Amino acid sequence: MSIIYLDFNRTTPTAPSVLEAMQPYWGHHFYLPNQQHPLARAINESLEQAREAVSLMVGCDAFELVFTGGGTEANNLAILGAVQGEPPGHILVSAVEHESVLLAAESLVRQGWQLEELPCNSIGQVDPEMVAQRLREDTALVCVQLANPVIGTIQPIRKIADVCHKRGVRLHCDATQAFGKVAVDAVALGVDTMSISGHKFYGPRGSGALYLRAGVKLSPIAHGESREMGLRPGPENIPAWVGMGVAASLVARCIDEVEATFHELQERLVNGIDSSLSGVVFMGGRDVLGLPNTVCVELPVPAVQVQETARDLVVRSPESGQPPCEMTRVLSATGRTPAQIARTLQISLGWTTSREQIDRAVELLAEACESAGF
Amino acid sequence: MSIIYLDFNRTTPTAPSVLEAMQPYWGHHFYLPNQQHPLARAINESLEQAREAVSLMVGCDAFELVFTGGGTEANNLAILGAVQGEPPGHILVSAVEHESVLLAAESLVRQGWQLEELPCNSIGQVDPEMVAQRLREDTALVCVQLANPVIGTIQPIRKIADVCHKRGVRLHCDATQAFGKVAVDAVALGVDTMSISGHKFYGPRGSGALYLRAGVKLSPIAHGESREMGLRPGPENIPAWVGMGVAASLVARCIDEVEATFHELQERLVNGIDSSLSGVVFMGGRDVLGLPNTVCVELPVPAVQVQETARDLVVRSPESGQPPCEMTRVLSATGRTPAQIARTLQISLGWTTSREQIDRAVELLAEACESAGF
Repeated sequence: MSIIYLDFNRTTPTAPSVLEAMQPYWGHHFYLPNQQHPLARAINESLEQAREAVSLMVGCDAFELVFTGGGTEANNLAILGAVQGEPPGHILVSAVEHESVLLAAESLVRQGWQLEELPCNSIGQVDPEMVAQRLREDTALVCVQLANPVIGTIQPIRKIADVCHKRGVRLHCDATQAFGKVAVDAVALGVDTMSISGHKFYGPRGSGALYLRAGVKLSPIAHGESREMGLRPGPENIPAWVGMGVAASLVARCIDEVEATFHELQERLVNGIDSSLSGVVFMGGRDVLGLPNTVCVELPVPAVQVQETARDLVVRSPESGQPPCEMTRVLSATGRTPAQIARTLQISLGWTTSREQIDRAVELLAEACESAGF
Repeated sequence: MSIIYLDFNRTTPTAPSVLEAMQPYWGHHFYLPNQQHPLARAINESLEQAREAVSLMVGCDAFELVFTGGGTEANNLAILGAVQGEPPGHILVSAVEHESVLLAAESLVRQGWQLEELPCNSIGQVDPEMVAQRLREDTALVCVQLANPVIGTIQPIRKIADVCHKRGVRLHCDATQAFGKVAVDAVALGVDTMSISGHKFYGPRGSGALYLRAGVKLSPIAHGESREMGLRPGPENIPAWVGMGVAASLVARCIDEVEATFHELQERLVNGIDSSLSGVVFMGGRDVLGLPNTVCVELPVPAVQVQETARDLVVRSPESGQPPCEMTRVLSATGRTPAQIARTLQISLGWTTSREQIDRAVELLAEACESAGF
């Protein structure tokens, strides 16, 4: 029996066409754009083509993209780079953000910044009204992600952006979990900065980008040779960025079909679990909200136990230990008890997920629950 | 006529065996070490094998290595991470450092740190005696690179480390230019932190490491999921780091032969230039010091002009513009005049450089000088 990988929200395999496109840039066209030779300068064209491709996926102009080494770097740059040199003030961060957002914001506390957490409702949503209520005179930055990897919640970013901009406050949106799953349009969302991570949408590890709306100011957080509009030093990672560009092209071209397929598979999975296991509770009810590839389900038995039995299945269950893992943290924020959280399983589908895999996953889950004494 | 690439100090092509070793980790073994599956946990073994391989090249224990996205990140981490949370004091930085070292140190000035430049002699060397004289009660950090990419100078790091440690001062050494050219032994050098860049020794772009001597403290400069001893957040770049490990193994295995070959080729190049062009001046005289792959030569005509004529040759000449490029900055620090600098060409050999390429490069240089009216 082969492995059924249903943890695509954590990481995706690099697509074969992405890998192929990267190939020549490692050993053959390995020049850096700033080397003094026409062949080196030609590398710049490849880089700008990649930027163009990513901009089509993001819904922005190519010059609004700063390429980075990944989503964590993009989040750090967006947050630390936004407040650098500013007098300490107030930052609002949603309770369901990724560690890189939460901890980057938290690192500012020792510089005198005040950090306030925006609570969410039982399905992980942040209320734009509440954002409005919590904005202060000295609020410099609001951070709300576009989609949550654990429960799939999609936030009302446009409304939150309007609330922020009415008060002249900057909005950073970690959108790393949305690309390759739903269509994204940075301009329609109205955000000021937005993070992108290549390995979340079948691009390579080590690739990412920060969307920086035209006119929005940012300082670099690392130093060196001036690259990427002076915002990201160090030699350009041409193979990784070219690869991210190809992955972005795939996304831009196929996102409608991808969404439709995900919806069908998601329904099949939810129906399968529902009919083979009684007593399960889906996050957000049967009409699962948000990302169409994501299913978060409370089982009748501990999730870790299920996972240990269903060895052919790669899914996600809460990890014990301190600090709490993202899954525990996010589910706690929605009001779930530790006992509920321990029974929760997180499943995320990918472009290569088949109906047969869904059906087999349901069987494995049912068998595992049964052997766990249910 | 095919291109003769003699700019290996800027970047190297990824070695075929490195590329091959990386291959399975993109689309097949694409798991992250912290995913909940035995196959994912097995990835951790590949990562630790890579760390072991890099440690053999560096001459340290594997647990003393923090993997990063490159040398620029490693330098930023070593410098900004060393002083974080410390009361502002004094930092000594050599005048011939890479931008990522100089500018990371310079960024601390606005936090109240005092930055002092350590001058060098006419061949780019920093005098340990001078370091001793300039150390102050409040000196927190000294930064001196191991080898210079422009002139090839190798610094007396061991002596500088002794001077620093006698006064309890930390020494950071950017060694990115040394690996793959000369044998390096972190313990023998006695440094506290040392930067490593994968793409400088036939490893992939996007790979690097920081050697952190056991017991030396450091704070992370970016935030997120705790990885790499809590010093480097974000998902592990397994393909790039596995690739760097393979490149490091090549270096560790072959460095003696590499050094010997470089010495032979360097002599051939110096002799060739010397006999076909009169009026040339080699940095450090005929007995070129330092990196055996590096030749820095003052021509009788402007270097840019030579480069424009010798189109098949990829070498390095000073770039105009502000701020001054690394080559201009380093040569200025050695006391060269703007006119001398404009005539200086920087040539760096690689593992694939052949005698035929050296001979042809000499011909091309001679022809270019001739057509430039010499």
